[in-house]
Amino acid sequence: MKFNKLLLAAVACGLATGANAQAKPEDQIKFRKAGYAFMSWNMGKIKAQVVDNPSSFNKDQVAAAANLIAATANSGMGALYGPGTEKDAGSQKTRVKAEFFQQPDEVKKLAVAFIKEANELQKVATTGDAAAIKAQFGKTGESCKACHDKFRKDD
Amino acid sequence: MKFNKLLLAAVACGLATGANAQAKPEDQIKFRKAGYAFMSWNMGKIKAQVVDNPSSFNKDQVAAAANLIAATANSGMGALYGPGTEKDAGSQKTRVKAEFFQQPDEVKKLAVAFIKEANELQKVATTGDAAAIKAQFGKTGESCKACHDKFRKDD
Ligand code: HEC
Ligand code: HEC
Repeated sequence: MKFNKLLLAAVACGLATGANAQAKPEDQIKFRKAGYAFMSWNMGKIKAQVVDNPSSFNKDQVAAAANLIAATANSGMGALYGPGTEKDAGSQKTRVKAEFFQQPDEVKKLAVAFIKEANELQKVATTGDAAAIKAQFGKTGESCKACHDKFRKDD
Repeated sequence: MKFNKLLLAAVACGLATGANAQAKPEDQIKFRKAGYAFMSWNMGKIKAQVVDNPSSFNKDQVAAAANLIAATANSGMGALYGPGTEKDAGSQKTRVKAEFFQQPDEVKKLAVAFIKEANELQKVATTGDAAAIKAQFGKTGESCKACHDKFRKDD
């Protein structure tokens, strides 16, 4: 049966069946940390190619990394900050600060600013202009940092 | 100084300075698991909206999830299977099978097949045709499963 085949494939892929905004707190924390960590790998690739070692610049790799960052920014990670995720849950530790849940307008402002920079990075990356990408990489990194300064514990 | 500002932002974002194909094995394992985990969250959102609960279908959310999956597929995760990552490293446990490193042609074949399905899912998702998305979601999930069956340990 078609449905069972889909379900099987989904389970085999390690999907929480019925994963959605109501995923359990432990999984929400796991997924948001995973999203940030994978994004940071992609920021690191751009940094390596436009800041640390410009001779290694590869337009396609940088554009692919920028696509990942923009897609993550636009993936609706807010759904991963549901009730019960303000503290450690199950095996998952979290570094989110209490302020994150108390200042939704400020979170929204910083999230919107980040999405704007990430979308711009994606756009600039398609041009292959390394200097422009470097400048926009800097702005994107600052938008990450702005959120961490307010809402992420240091350790 | 511009460079220091960039570097500061990068460090503040938790980037390994100089993160690249030569990231240490522990980080490579962390990043690849993060990439798969975040992708599975996005597969789960599509599943929830086209399989489990079609009345919750939201075209934009599904398209955003498909963008994330395609961007992950095209991010060059092969770079995260470097020397030293065939076994646990530091705090990171891995479920990759030894066969992954012994059968590069088979890995490539399955990776290329997965990328093709993920790109098609991204394309189909822009149409908002829930039935077509459901069918392509199934094919994408099967391409995840094909790789897990061969190259990922069960626990
Ligand atoms: C709107 C807020 C916000 C933005 C924007 C943001 N972050 Fe974060 N980030 C957080 C919070 C909160 C945490 C802590 C999550 C937790 O521990 O539950 C975090 C955690 C992380 C982590 C640690 C993940 C782990 O494995 O525990 C990394 C790395 C990271 N962010 C990188 C980035 C990068 C890179 C960017 C931008 C490209 C970014 N973040 C943008 C709020 C943000
Ligand atoms: C070309 C091979 C390949 C493809 C394609 C693939 N995977 Fe995997 N996946 C792996 C391997 C290998 C691991 C084990 C990684 C490790 O433990 O180091 C893994 C691990 C995972 C994990 C566990 C992550 C964690 O937190 O430990 C999930 C979830 C997952 N994959 C989901 C998916 C989904 C969803 C897709 C498709 C949309 C997919 N995978 C496509 C090879 C693949």
